[in-house]
Order: sequence, then C-alpha cells, then structure tokens
Amino acid sequence: MLEQLKKQVYDANMELPTRGLVTYTWGNVSGIDRESRYFVIKPSGVEYGELTPDDMVVMDLDGNRIEGKYKPSSDTATHIELYKAYADIGGIVHTHSQEAVAWAQAGRDIPLYGTTHADYFFGPIPCTRNLTPEEIDEAYEKNTGKVIIETFTERDIDPIYTPGVLCKNHGPFTWGKDAAQAVYNSVVLEEVARMARNTELINPDVKPAPNSIRDKHFFRKHGINAYYGQ
Amino acid sequence: MLEQLKKQVYDANMELPTRGLVTYTWGNVSGIDRESRYFVIKPSGVEYGELTPDDMVVMDLDGNRIEGKYKPSSDTATHIELYKAYADIGGIVHTHSQEAVAWAQAGRDIPLYGTTHADYFFGPIPCTRNLTPEEIDEAYEKNTGKVIIETFTERDIDPIYTPGVLCKNHGPFTWGKDAAQAVYNSVVLEEVARMARNTELINPDVKPAPNSIRDKHFFRKHGINAYYGQ
Amino acid sequence: MLEQLKKQVYDANMELPTRGLVTYTWGNVSGIDRESRYFVIKPSGVEYGELTPDDMVVMDLDGNRIEGKYKPSSDTATHIELYKAYADIGGIVHTHSQEAVAWAQAGRDIPLYGTTHADYFFGPIPCTRNLTPEEIDEAYEKNTGKVIIETFTERDIDPIYTPGVLCKNHGPFTWGKDAAQAVYNSVVLEEVARMARNTELINPDVKPAPNSIRDKHFFRKHGINAYYGQ
Amino acid sequence: MLEQLKKQVYDANMELPTRGLVTYTWGNVSGIDRESRYFVIKPSGVEYGELTPDDMVVMDLDGNRIEGKYKPSSDTATHIELYKAYADIGGIVHTHSQEAVAWAQAGRDIPLYGTTHADYFFGPIPCTRNLTPEEIDEAYEKNTGKVIIETFTERDIDPIYTPGVLCKNHGPFTWGKDAAQAVYNSVVLEEVARMARNTELINPDVKPAPNSIRDKHFFRKHGINAYYGQ
Repeated sequence: MLEQLKKQVYDANMELPTRGLVTYTWGNVSGIDRESRYFVIKPSGVEYGELTPDDMVVMDLDGNRIEGKYKPSSDTATHIELYKAYADIGGIVHTHSQEAVAWAQAGRDIPLYGTTHADYFFGPIPCTRNLTPEEIDEAYEKNTGKVIIETFTERDIDPIYTPGVLCKNHGPFTWGKDAAQAVYNSVVLEEVARMARNTELINPDVKPAPNSIRDKHFFRKHGINAYYGQ
Repeated sequence: MLEQLKKQVYDANMELPTRGLVTYTWGNVSGIDRESRYFVIKPSGVEYGELTPDDMVVMDLDGNRIEGKYKPSSDTATHIELYKAYADIGGIVHTHSQEAVAWAQAGRDIPLYGTTHADYFFGPIPCTRNLTPEEIDEAYEKNTGKVIIETFTERDIDPIYTPGVLCKNHGPFTWGKDAAQAVYNSVVLEEVARMARNTELINPDVKPAPNSIRDKHFFRKHGINAYYGQ
Repeated sequence: MLEQLKKQVYDANMELPTRGLVTYTWGNVSGIDRESRYFVIKPSGVEYGELTPDDMVVMDLDGNRIEGKYKPSSDTATHIELYKAYADIGGIVHTHSQEAVAWAQAGRDIPLYGTTHADYFFGPIPCTRNLTPEEIDEAYEKNTGKVIIETFTERDIDPIYTPGVLCKNHGPFTWGKDAAQAVYNSVVLEEVARMARNTELINPDVKPAPNSIRDKHFFRKHGINAYYGQ
Repeated sequence: MLEQLKKQVYDANMELPTRGLVTYTWGNVSGIDRESRYFVIKPSGVEYGELTPDDMVVMDLDGNRIEGKYKPSSDTATHIELYKAYADIGGIVHTHSQEAVAWAQAGRDIPLYGTTHADYFFGPIPCTRNLTPEEIDEAYEKNTGKVIIETFTERDIDPIYTPGVLCKNHGPFTWGKDAAQAVYNSVVLEEVARMARNTELINPDVKPAPNSIRDKHFFRKHGINAYYGQ
C-alpha cells in the first residue's frame, strides 16, 4: 500500500546523509497521505545504507502500525501531533544537524539576518521551552509535538510561513507540503543557522534585517505574487 | 546565437556548485557580448543538475528576452545595471555563499588583512547600505544594482581593482573580464571572507595589512609591471 | 590466531580516516578477547592505506607481544591500563580529532548541552589533569591510563555510562563493548564537541541541559527500558 | 636532469590540493639536490591539474634557471634564502591555507597547546614582523626569506626543531628533510592552527601545555631516543 508515498519518503530519508544532515541513524522523515490519514515514516535505528522503500513503516494518526516489519521511528508521536495540528503540511523531518542543534542547545531563536533566511522562513526560527520533568515522564515524544504547537500558537507564528522549529536542548524539526520539501527546509535551516552564527561572530551588535527586505524576499518566492522560478 | 558565450556562461554557472558556493539554485552567472550588447544569463530557479548550455537566456540591456525558453534569473535587473555602468566588465556572479553572506549580514566591509586578499582585491571589499522600503517597492533588483554603483562612486572605489561587493543583509556580487573570471573572484571572496573572520577571532585587535604589502601583491599580479604567472 | 578479532580491529581502525577522525597515522584502535586475555592493536606509525588485518599486533595484558611482525602502537600501555581496570569494555580508540583535541587543549570537560550528547554519554565528558613531570618520565603511556582511571574514580563517574575522556593537552580516548562501538563513541564525541563549542559561541551564558532530558534520552537508548531501535 | 627529484617535487606539489591546502595556484613546493646545489620548483601560476613532472623548473642558488620551459614560482627567491641559510633542509612549501593564514594575518605565534603540535614542532610556531616598505621595494621575495631567518636567529629557534613559520599578513612556509616531509609539516601546521584557534574559543584564558609534555612528545618521535613507529 502507498507505494508511491513510501518511495518519496524513502528518497527524502536518503537525502539527509547525502546533504550532510545526519550521522549514523540520527534523523527521520515522514510523509502523509491526507485522504487515508495514513503516514509513512522511517523505521527506528536502521542504518541509512541498509534502508529500502519497503522498510518504511505505515502508521495511522492514532499511532497504530498499519504495515511494515519494523518499529517506526522513536519520534513518531511527535510527527503525529504535528500532522494533527497542521492540516496543510505533508512531510516532516527531524535531524541532529550540527548548526541547528547548536542554536537549540543555546536555547535561542535564529534571528532573521538576511535574504537566505527570508527566502524560506518569514521571521525568526523559534526555539521552544524545555519540557517539564512531568511532561517528559508522561509522554516525551507526544509532548515534544505539543510544545512545538504551543510555541507557534502563543507567539502567533504561522507554521506555513515558518516551516521549522528548534526544540530546546534537542534539535530541529522542519516540515513542508511533502517529504521532499520538508528536507529542503532542513537544508535551508542548517545553512541559515551557520550563517547566523558567523554573522554574530563578525558583528556582535548586529541587528535583524529590515522587515522590508524580509517581505520582499519571502513574497518573491511564495504566494500569488511570487515571480521567482519558471 | 552566441553559442560560444552560452557555453562559457553555462560552464561558469556549473563551477559554482563544484566550488561549494551554491546550495540548490541560489546563484547565477552572466556574461556579455559587448559588440551586440546582448548578455547571457542562467534561467531562474532551474536546478544546476538539469541545466544545459541551450537553457541559458539571451537578454538585451533593456531587459528584453532575445532568445531562450526560460525566464531569466530574478536578479537580471541587477546584472543590467552593472553592465551599463561598468563598461570594462564582461561577467557577473551572484551567490549566497556562507562566508560572504555572513559579512553581508553583519553589515561590514571585509578588511584587507593579508596577501590572499590583496592578490585580487585592492582594498576592503565594501558592504552597501540597505535599500529603503521605497527603493525595494519601486524596483528591487534594479535598485540593488544602483546601490552597488552608488557605493563604489561615493567611496571612490575602482570596480576593476575591487571586483566584488557585499549587498547588506543579502550576499555577494563579483565580476570580471568574463564569466570565468567573475567566478574566480567569487571563490577568492569566499576564501578571504573566511580568513578574515578567523583572523578577528584569533586577534580581536587586529589591524589591516600595511598598504606597502597590499600594493606589492596586487601589482605583482595586475597591471603592466605584473610578474606572476607565465 | 584471533583472526576474527584482528579483522574487527582492522575494520575499526580503517573507519577512523573514513569518518575524518585521523590525519596520517594519528590514531589507534584495539579490541580484546577476554577469554584469552589477549588484545589486538594497530601497529605504531603504519599508514592506514597500507594496513592489512594481518598487520594487527596481538599483545597480552603484561605488554608482551604474542604475535605480529610490527611493534604495537606507542599508546599500548594506556590501552592495557584501561582493559585491566574496566572489565566490561572490549574495545578502545585514541585519536587526535580536531574538535575533541580543542577541548582537551582547553582543559575543560564537555558539558552536556543536549540530547545528541545524552544519547551516548550520561554526563559531562571529563578532562583529566596533566601528568606530573615525574609521571611522564616514569612511564608516560601507562600513567596516561592511570590518570584516566583516577579521574573516573575520584569524580565517581561510571565508565560504562560515560565511555570517553579527554586527556589534558593531548586528546580523546573512547571505549565500548567492542572495537566498533568504541569507534562509534569517538564519532559521537567529535560531533558533540563541535556542537558544544558552537553552542557556547551562540550563547556564552548557556547552562547544561536539565537532568530530566539527560535521563530520558540516555535511558531511551540504554538499559532495560530502552525502546530506541528494533 | 634530476628526474627523480622532479618527480618527488611534482608529487609533493600535487599533494597540496589533495590535502585541501591550496585553492587554484596558491602554493608551491621545492626540493634541493645538495650535491649539485640545484633545486627544483613549481612553475609560477600553472594550474595543478595541468602540471607534469617535466614542467618542474630547475634552478641554481643564484636564481638562474638551469632547465625548464616555464618561469619558476614567484616565491623562488624566498626558497633560495632558506636553502642557503639552512643546510639541513631538503624541501620547502608555501601555501595560503585557511587556518595558518588566519594566524599570519592576526600577527600571532601559534602557541604550543598540545601533543599534536609537540609531535612535530618543538615550541610556538613563530610569526615574523612585517617587511618595511623599503625591504618590499628592494627585493620582496628575497627579503621575505631574510625576515624568516632573522626571526629564527633573534629568537634563538632551531629551524630543524620548528620546521615552519608564519609570514605576517601573508601565510606559512614549512620545510623538512625533503619535499614530502615539508608537505607533511604543512598539513600538521594547518591542523594545529585550527586546533589552537578552537582551543582559545573554548577557553580564552588557556595556557600553553607544560614543557614536560612538549619534551615527551617531541622526543618520542624525534632524535636518538625516539620510539614511535617501526
């Protein structure tokens, strides 16, 4: 079942080591079929070099395994929360990529310092609060999803305009219309995170880019007035 | 038409990912034929892996597409301003390369700290001011070209001696006698930007190199007394 | 003799340059057969490109060469001390990898800043004191092992929960249940060291991650309640 | 003539881009035959990808070209000064490698922070003063050699124990018993330079390693009591 989606999710997973975003098994990608409400996700702890499209696990949004010989990613419950809350997203990525993790560990939003950022994220990339010990004990992965949603809700951030987040002391999640775009946004996030770190080293008093530049670049690539590309 | 120039511009574009200066489609190279006043530029948003020389777009300096099935780079109007203002340049490059962008986002000129810089850039690599909201609204890409020219004019910098610039909160443009040399200067700029960042981390009180070293190295490679190479 | 162990130790050694952890000959891996009390180690100063499984040297825990045409690694006496003190480890790695060495030279423990660290190391990765001139003169490599053990004993750190150390002004040692896992832990240490450095650059006032996150992630992957993987 | 030396010097030159120490043509290696007092050096400004052993230029120590169709490296006069002053060296390398240049531009010696450094350099790697405008005008490359020698003489550094230097605002020169060892020392210098930069970022108050560690590691690999290797 869902052979095409499995292939897409497999390809998206394999893109992570190719792009230098994962070491060993430290990442996972999923993609959802909104009609059946089933999603497909990488199995837990299986080496990328050994994966095949058929190893992808099919799950429903209640966390039941529908198909697949492997256990799904240990982060599956986080993916479920995001799919349930954000009806317009079709793919999700989690990694421990170097530069994004450094910001997550530092506990800081990534400020919007320039057009590379503004081309894909309409504002700072937010960093969540820590989960409480109770939230961790109760349901760590599910509550990781909930604290992401809380962050976007409380700060009134549109997850379609800002398709990624840093989980404090942990690492990034990104999303997109499908698994491939979610990976694309992970690559952007890593590039932007490195640029922002170096920007602050070069100028410790740097200010975020003006809103006029943010708006121009974001809407040059997104929305009905976009004119980038073919 | 302009088959040889298309091939040169194609090759120069393909050099960007090879040299690690672009991710995805985030860069563009053009080259001009001064006789016909036509220039050739990368199409907008097309993956490097799919490009062919025939995909290059032929434009005139009024912004009309003369030949090509694709829309030209969204930065085409910036290229036009530079070609019109600087009669001696034959190729232009724009990228979002990591180290140059960090300086652009920091809003700082890259100081001339040593001979690697002085071999190709006769002084600091300038950073422009931001465009005003009005300039962005009116004609963003064209005014990006105009603010580059304003920077060189007001600060009395010779664009042949300093073949590159940082656009504030955006990224670098470089140029040269042709598309290949413009790419070469982009590579130099990226190397020099990284060296300068690390230089300041090692010695926060560092001063620029003496003018005597700058002059020696620049004129060892450029002008009628050059003696580097064969 | 010990052909299978030699092959494992050879493979583990070859993984070091593949993972970017060694330049030239600056690293060594060993693995032990607890039944015979013999261990197998890389020969001293032999290029990785020229190694074969048969070049591995078989040693006993008194430092006698049991088999092999080469002299063993100059760090052999350090490996012996660790194997004698820690009965549950089966493999040991030493490298001069960039990021771990920088922390060793800085003379600092690597704080536990996030889940990438907590997935494999249950607390800060400790940095030893310097050996005294007398300890160096008397038996440098043996005393390097002794000062590692002293560090874990005096600070009450369990070497199974924290499978690595930084030797001050020198570099890292890691270990594991076998040679392959010891190399895995070296890769993790290098990743974590880089993340921690960048974390502090982004936020100089950063605090370690909460213990609740440390516990959750470590025990998600280790111990009887682990649920990561298949 | 000197076919074997030409091959050695060619191989050593080709090692520079392989090791990531040069961009474009920004480096050169030479090797000397002490019997004939001729040395062999890379031609000036020729791309590495196009070099052949026969392109190497044979020079005498008065700067006369003895054989070869190309002009020698523009830094030839620096090599000559070093060969004349240091009778025990057989090969010399100059590069613009990123990390060593950053220290040269910062105008600082690289402190001896650990064993990776002490294994090959018996003390800080010194940074010269700037040449005066008069020295630059009179004979830039020759006086670059002279200021290196002045640095070692005035500070009483043995060039065999410390086989490299940073020329202020310029970059590194290293040397060795032959061209291959000189390249090896360039690789070490670059590794050590990066480690030292990161060491200071992690601990701004860091002190150099104790002399006891320096002595142990240097003499473990060098001199009559060396016991590293086979």
